[in-house]
Amino acid sequence: MKLDETIKGRRSIRKYQDVEIPDSVIEELLDLALHTPSSMNGQPWHFIVVRRQETKTKLAEIKNRYCPVEKQMYRADFLKDAPVIIVVCVDKNKSYDREVENAVLATLNILLGAFSRGIGTVYMSAYKPDDSRISEEIRKALRIPMSIAPITIIPLGYPDETPEPKTIRDIKGAISYESY
Amino acid sequence: MKLDETIKGRRSIRKYQDVEIPDSVIEELLDLALHTPSSMNGQPWHFIVVRRQETKTKLAEIKNRYCPVEKQMYRADFLKDAPVIIVVCVDKNKSYDREVENAVLATLNILLGAFSRGIGTVYMSAYKPDDSRISEEIRKALRIPMSIAPITIIPLGYPDETPEPKTIRDIKGAISYESY
Repeated sequence: MKLDETIKGRRSIRKYQDVEIPDSVIEELLDLALHTPSSMNGQPWHFIVVRRQETKTKLAEIKNRYCPVEKQMYRADFLKDAPVIIVVCVDKNKSYDREVENAVLATLNILLGAFSRGIGTVYMSAYKPDDSRISEEIRKALRIPMSIAPITIIPLGYPDETPEPKTIRDIKGAISYESY
Repeated sequence: MKLDETIKGRRSIRKYQDVEIPDSVIEELLDLALHTPSSMNGQPWHFIVVRRQETKTKLAEIKNRYCPVEKQMYRADFLKDAPVIIVVCVDKNKSYDREVENAVLATLNILLGAFSRGIGTVYMSAYKPDDSRISEEIRKALRIPMSIAPITIIPLGYPDETPEPKTIRDIKGAISYESY
């Protein structure tokens, strides 16, 4: 798919067909992720691919438990029904103080790569800036060592919903020239 | 350009031809940025487009002043010679505690959109997690109010260098299945 079409067409998908995504396709997406720019070219990523039902259910429970009041409309129950989940982690020793940035950039390449292959995804966080409990629980569930930080969670599946059209802000209000 | 080709071909560019990039092209890139997913669909971005020499020089000075020892090989002097710089900011009141993530995601769409149009860029940070001075100085230089956080800086220009080929990690070492 063309780049602009991919960026403009991608939408968050939270309902998936009960259809498997083969490892070969997941590896294509993770190969795209490895081409993401990273601080000092540290390429600090590690990806955990989850298909086991017990683990998906556990991730949904953890996300729901720490879901803030204002985000209750976005419950994580659907995570249980995603055919695959990718947890994007980074090696803290290769991130040059930019764990979040490195992981978030790679995450977007996975989201775009998935959409261009007809696969639905939604961006979810695996950590909170002000509360380490969520990442600690995810670390425990996935046996992630302390030197590795889980940052995002990406459920993937062929879409079983068609999102409402999204209204994008007028660009004029989003730009200033030379200063704010 | 095709998505995969864009993601795999993009490289960091720090040397630019002395050729202007018209506002219409910058607006195409920022339109792509506005299609980025955001927390609670807050679309919290604000983009400052800088072409004034004095401001570009000021940004280079600020970046150099706070450049950590281990990143001294990546000095910011070249910022002075970029035809255009985009500073990506977010409105803290529309970011739902995810200022960095929202800005970083939009930044990658700008980097990809630029590459697909033959324009070189490089990802730079406008803040440090543990030192607020750099973002305060940038805020002052660009008259950014306190409710708005500058997060990234993107110099743009038609490339005047051809980077060395980049070695990407072997994918097998970057994936685990079911747990780390």
